[in-house]
Amino acid sequence: MSSSDSQVLTPTNRTTVKRLPMRGNYDRTEIEQILDEGLICQVGFVVNGQPFVIPTAYGRVGDKLYIHGSPASRMLRTLQQGVEVCVTVTLLDGLVLARSAFHHSMNYRSVVLFGTATLVNNPDEKLEALKAFTDHIIPGRWEDVRSPNRQELAGTLVLSLPITEASAKVRTGGPSDDEGDYALPTWAGVIPLRVVADAPIADEQLTLAIEPPDYVTHYQR
Amino acid sequence: MSSSDSQVLTPTNRTTVKRLPMRGNYDRTEIEQILDEGLICQVGFVVNGQPFVIPTAYGRVGDKLYIHGSPASRMLRTLQQGVEVCVTVTLLDGLVLARSAFHHSMNYRSVVLFGTATLVNNPDEKLEALKAFTDHIIPGRWEDVRSPNRQELAGTLVLSLPITEASAKVRTGGPSDDEGDYALPTWAGVIPLRVVADAPIADEQLTLAIEPPDYVTHYQR
Repeated sequence: MSSSDSQVLTPTNRTTVKRLPMRGNYDRTEIEQILDEGLICQVGFVVNGQPFVIPTAYGRVGDKLYIHGSPASRMLRTLQQGVEVCVTVTLLDGLVLARSAFHHSMNYRSVVLFGTATLVNNPDEKLEALKAFTDHIIPGRWEDVRSPNRQELAGTLVLSLPITEASAKVRTGGPSDDEGDYALPTWAGVIPLRVVADAPIADEQLTLAIEPPDYVTHYQR
Repeated sequence: MSSSDSQVLTPTNRTTVKRLPMRGNYDRTEIEQILDEGLICQVGFVVNGQPFVIPTAYGRVGDKLYIHGSPASRMLRTLQQGVEVCVTVTLLDGLVLARSAFHHSMNYRSVVLFGTATLVNNPDEKLEALKAFTDHIIPGRWEDVRSPNRQELAGTLVLSLPITEASAKVRTGGPSDDEGDYALPTWAGVIPLRVVADAPIADEQLTLAIEPPDYVTHYQR
């Protein structure tokens, strides 16, 4: 495992892409790129047979995905018991317009990750994980802000999930229509979608004349 | 229930927003607006104790959420057995930059919906649901495309979920910093985020000179 570029994860029964398997991808680099571009993951877990899906921020360091929150969070209290977790990150890249209603689709990149979470107790790893959250969402931000103090660190639970049992699913390109439909006088193609940042809104309590840094004014995903 | 504007859903143990309850909202109009703006939902379900979270498109008609797919889909095969489902839709509106790492946050609007799915057998309701998918994602598109034929209808499973046990969670506004941090020379505020459509890409096999319709060239969420 000298280089992450050449690594392919072994598909398991849970991660094997069963519907449209040609869209499945087990390459670690592809999986990490999707995780790094996303901002929110969806955490699925079970309490008394009932599924819950909760959106939350995350960070990645190497082959670990970190989530965090309050010790009062039901999600974190449940996850730290070592229950099975399913984490999904979805990036929507476009709407695919076919000539028939049936063949409409979306271009997307998604990752599904299975595993069990581990509570991060090591203070160094915990701080590294919190730095990873901030760097993941706004690269460069960590250096400019007040670091967590002892009380804040104690009031934050950090959990790690191994990125080992995971798969990506990707759709790209235009529509695939039925042969007989290509002659229809219907526009077909792709509407590309992306997330953009609008001009930053300074906090009203920003009394000092502080210009927004480059990573704010030039923010992009 | 003469007007949906005045309706507030009754919170249940599952839908009560426990973390930061002031962000919770049970107003049907708010919930429907979030569902109507989103493009992808995350469907959580349990198979042999294992949680799965699968992103998929959806539509809404009144107080029903519809999802659809192939009869071969594990998700649809599982859901039509009447198991408990959790559906989440998340809209990310901005990144909230505080003076401390700890108080960084996100502005978002999310809906969490619990219930069990019902297979839609009635042909009229099925067609209406499929129209709702298309109208939900690209308003106006349905009128321009070839409608589903009998074979396509038979090859599509449609499931409905009642929008009765649901809650919204919303965060808006700027950062909330610790009193002592306001004097720090750190820029603070919000980076607004939104989904935009780029110029449409015509299908290479669009041999006729067909201009993209307004709902494509002016697509916005």
